[in-house]
Amino acid sequence: MQLRTVSELLLQNINLPEVEVKGWVRTFRANRFIALNDGSTLNNIQCVVDFENTDEAILKRITTGAALHIKGELVESRGKGQNVEVNVTSIDILGDSDAETFPIQPKKHSFEFLRENAHLRTRTNTFGAVMRLRSALSFAIHKYFNENGFYYMHAPIITGSDAEGAGEMFRVTNLDAKNPPLNDEGEVDYKQDFFGKETNLTVSGQLEAETYAMSLGKVYTFGPTFRAENSNTSRHLAEFWMIEPEVAFMDLNGNMDLAEDFMKSILSYVLENNIEDLNFLDKRLQDEEKTKPQAQRNEMTLIEKLNFVTENNFKRISYTEAIDILRNCKPNKKKKFKYIINEWGADLQSEHERFLVEKHFKCPVILFDYPANIKAFYMRLNEDGKTVRAMDILFPGIGEMVGGSQREERLEVLKEKIKALDIDEEELWWYLDLRKYGTAVHSGFGLGFERLVMFATGMSNIRDVIPFPRTPQNAEF
Amino acid sequence: MQLRTVSELLLQNINLPEVEVKGWVRTFRANRFIALNDGSTLNNIQCVVDFENTDEAILKRITTGAALHIKGELVESRGKGQNVEVNVTSIDILGDSDAETFPIQPKKHSFEFLRENAHLRTRTNTFGAVMRLRSALSFAIHKYFNENGFYYMHAPIITGSDAEGAGEMFRVTNLDAKNPPLNDEGEVDYKQDFFGKETNLTVSGQLEAETYAMSLGKVYTFGPTFRAENSNTSRHLAEFWMIEPEVAFMDLNGNMDLAEDFMKSILSYVLENNIEDLNFLDKRLQDEEKTKPQAQRNEMTLIEKLNFVTENNFKRISYTEAIDILRNCKPNKKKKFKYIINEWGADLQSEHERFLVEKHFKCPVILFDYPANIKAFYMRLNEDGKTVRAMDILFPGIGEMVGGSQREERLEVLKEKIKALDIDEEELWWYLDLRKYGTAVHSGFGLGFERLVMFATGMSNIRDVIPFPRTPQNAEF
Repeated sequence: MQLRTVSELLLQNINLPEVEVKGWVRTFRANRFIALNDGSTLNNIQCVVDFENTDEAILKRITTGAALHIKGELVESRGKGQNVEVNVTSIDILGDSDAETFPIQPKKHSFEFLRENAHLRTRTNTFGAVMRLRSALSFAIHKYFNENGFYYMHAPIITGSDAEGAGEMFRVTNLDAKNPPLNDEGEVDYKQDFFGKETNLTVSGQLEAETYAMSLGKVYTFGPTFRAENSNTSRHLAEFWMIEPEVAFMDLNGNMDLAEDFMKSILSYVLENNIEDLNFLDKRLQDEEKTKPQAQRNEMTLIEKLNFVTENNFKRISYTEAIDILRNCKPNKKKKFKYIINEWGADLQSEHERFLVEKHFKCPVILFDYPANIKAFYMRLNEDGKTVRAMDILFPGIGEMVGGSQREERLEVLKEKIKALDIDEEELWWYLDLRKYGTAVHSGFGLGFERLVMFATGMSNIRDVIPFPRTPQNAEF
Repeated sequence: MQLRTVSELLLQNINLPEVEVKGWVRTFRANRFIALNDGSTLNNIQCVVDFENTDEAILKRITTGAALHIKGELVESRGKGQNVEVNVTSIDILGDSDAETFPIQPKKHSFEFLRENAHLRTRTNTFGAVMRLRSALSFAIHKYFNENGFYYMHAPIITGSDAEGAGEMFRVTNLDAKNPPLNDEGEVDYKQDFFGKETNLTVSGQLEAETYAMSLGKVYTFGPTFRAENSNTSRHLAEFWMIEPEVAFMDLNGNMDLAEDFMKSILSYVLENNIEDLNFLDKRLQDEEKTKPQAQRNEMTLIEKLNFVTENNFKRISYTEAIDILRNCKPNKKKKFKYIINEWGADLQSEHERFLVEKHFKCPVILFDYPANIKAFYMRLNEDGKTVRAMDILFPGIGEMVGGSQREERLEVLKEKIKALDIDEEELWWYLDLRKYGTAVHSGFGLGFERLVMFATGMSNIRDVIPFPRTPQNAEF
């Protein structure tokens, strides 16, 4: 007698006289039909109890959330909704679940409530599906890079470098919190801290990834990054995961090719491998959309949005061209945009990005050559002296999905930019070394993993696509 | 004309009239032979310069570390050590490298020196090989779990829970460092901190992984973990990566089966896919061993050690049996051990573990059923009331490689253990919930990724197997 997962049992197309399965009760109907789930798939296996010959005490303990060990015969199902079911010959209650107190009842719970029970929420269909997809997307990413000659590089999490200036940082310390040691100037003496200097949680692994690209050629990071921004929105987390590929000898065009191929590949992977979970989430999203006023509804279903990315070529236009289109478009002229686009140099908002993708081009869009003053110091300056070789990839429903650039490889130009921003050159000695010794064109991009999971699952709150979200005032579990 | 990687060019077995390659100069001999490397492989491609027809100014700029763009004809090599070489028709110097100041000279550098230049050390053969293997091992791990029905789960990095007690932790904060706000009791008021409570960097994702195992069935973490221990040794890092699988309905025997199969599988993966880098590191290690006194030398080469794991069944014995063997063995009786084993209950040291593996059994060893008081609170208590269902896997040369256990799934027993350790039950409410609602037997183990990389590369200092090591007084780059 072989123990099998629910997923394996559901794939059988022959009767099996003796099977064994362990899982948790989702529902128990009519004292007869157990829907058992073990996480291996969205679907439950129906286990049919011969209640007339089963101890009443056992039947009472078959409650939602209880863990069972079931033995029986796998047969063709007479009911609807499944091909096979188990005729139960024995039930062993592994762990009870008090129907009165178990938080995950067989009914619809609000996502807020489930966030407070994040340790149990993957026992629901929605969160099971979301987290299986999260896992599948992670694997698709590693697989893509591995097959394309990239090396995975673990960028440091604790960093003494605060040069990127991408946002507010968390301090990492083990100094006495109440009475920190002070130096002669009366300031906190970080020389006595664990690392002998002030350290923070990283905001990006890019600069370190560049050091590896300039020796190993093609590398990528996939690790946690942090922002101490006090933003209590549905799109911000204090702790999130980023993917940052970096490639030597690749210019911005190559970067766009790579990003487009990468995004199509990983979304195709889940369309091919996770269609059950996607269909479930697609239906969930459609139900949610129906509760909204018509004008706020998304025009595309979840699967349509994924196909929109995998089946269309990404339109590539310069920031300058985009500004021209936006300045002259109807919503801008009729002041339907919240932020009206008047002139070159404006930072684009999600509403503008979505207009370009969803209304104007009707395909994913790559904008490139942004104004230098709205982009980071390490991006390569163009000959015009005012734009940089940056690119953003815009997706339907969500706006910016990927941000990248060709990096400034010229030592003198980089030094000037660092100086202009008042960054200490000494801090970046190692980064500048890359331009001193065998410098070369190189490029890369960053992808916020949770934004990708939101896009691929149709979930609208970023707290619902990471196991245990960290946000202002919240570090539970 | 197609741009190719060095790795692709070296695999060609026909002449190609026009090839293009970009990379960095490793050496330039006799004004004629460039050894060019682009990180795609350990090997260089030899590019032969027609120096009589090449500008003298260009020739002078072909120095170690310079980045070049070379065009030419791929032909069968007349020299030794390679099958093909490039007859250069054009050289473009992409980035110079001042031979006087470039730190990575074509000679042997000490690992200490290279650690200070961690941003450049992957330009050496040794560190290129180590980091390619690190990447390959990462992929092998993800591949193994994906193929075996596991879901990848990102455990939180910042945690408000300090219940595991696995070691000293780093505090994460953005309170004013010098003048933190105080509460009415005169203590630091963490309610005003970012998360509204005191938070730390995680020491393990296991407890959170258990919540996912108890819904998704089979999960694993692979993420950074932290210890603020002031240990300046060759085996400790303040920041390191851990792999922690966790499986519902699996007991300790299943856990041992899983760990053995997993270790064999990932090491077989690199033996199959990375043999060039392994052979190079094997030779490096043999050369290093020759400099040691005979008695301190390792009896096995690197490849032999890997085969020792992949080709032998792991011997499984209880802690109690191991103590009997150790108490009566020659090195113990002759007081050759640093720590003499006198009685049951002793914590085993690396010397004992290595004796069991290398001398006594001559195969990897799994010890199980350890004394409860030297193991963590969450391990399942045996019927004897004094041992727990823990296991450690011991490898040659390194001692403990994997530590795991069957988890205590009985609510009352777990509560008693928590109480005995003076841990606040409230802190672990969510962990206890797993035992309240549908509890079941489950097990898992932890593997320190850098220890694995050390084992698989033969490197003896843990700082040399992670890109940018974090240790006391050091958070450079």
